[in-house]
Amino acid sequence: MSTVASTATCELCNTPGGHVVWRGEGWRAIRAADASFPAFYRLICDRHVAEFTDLSPEERARCMERVAAVEQALRQALRPTRINIATLGNVVPHLHWHVIARFDWDSHFPQPVWGTAQRVVEPPAVQRLACTLEQLDAAVAAALEAA
Amino acid sequence: MSTVASTATCELCNTPGGHVVWRGEGWRAIRAADASFPAFYRLICDRHVAEFTDLSPEERARCMERVAAVEQALRQALRPTRINIATLGNVVPHLHWHVIARFDWDSHFPQPVWGTAQRVVEPPAVQRLACTLEQLDAAVAAALEAA
Repeated sequence: MSTVASTATCELCNTPGGHVVWRGEGWRAIRAADASFPAFYRLICDRHVAEFTDLSPEERARCMERVAAVEQALRQALRPTRINIATLGNVVPHLHWHVIARFDWDSHFPQPVWGTAQRVVEPPAVQRLACTLEQLDAAVAAALEAA
Repeated sequence: MSTVASTATCELCNTPGGHVVWRGEGWRAIRAADASFPAFYRLICDRHVAEFTDLSPEERARCMERVAAVEQALRQALRPTRINIATLGNVVPHLHWHVIARFDWDSHFPQPVWGTAQRVVEPPAVQRLACTLEQLDAAVAAALEAA
């Protein structure tokens, strides 16, 4: 059975969970503060549910079109090597989707961001992106607004 | 830009990619051979595309209802602590979704399966599941057939 933490102690019920770039219809998008992966966004369900199948089919469809909108915005703005998408929730059992632009030069590629670092990246990753984080946030927000 | 390997050299174009438990409408489901995570399934697109947004919106919706079907089958059969879902494709850039039942006693929990092992599990994980892998494969196949 899913372990559902009480909303009283849930980090994603009680904090935004990162730098909020968009809010709408029961979801929010945040940019994570991760120097190794600056183009790391999370789509967070405002409601405290643990698993994807705790959503209705209609909610799942809307959710994934938002995930796709974030992916498309990152692809267009950054031309990354790959987009990684995941929902894990092992540490924070409150539904959130990770959407991460990956580059063949990044610290962990081709390992997942949760794997083992492969190299030191200098100058830092954020300086290698094709646009600023402010521009990227705006592109992600616009894509979500249109989704 | 996405790096798309030629289909001639793509592992998922040229091999099933695991123990096939279901095939239908351009997708197949396989069970991975992973002793640490015996309830580890992958939904693999038969067509060689790299990213989720390389699918049409209709294909994405169908794809995610299949992912949800696998999740639901695993939840019902195993009552896992959590389901992890991900599409990465850093090593094999051919669209596939990982759907993995996780348990608080498994070798890596709460780390992702790609993270650092937390403990040695004895007896082996497969012996701790609530059903056999054959029963699990059948449950996953039935859920996909009905999705």
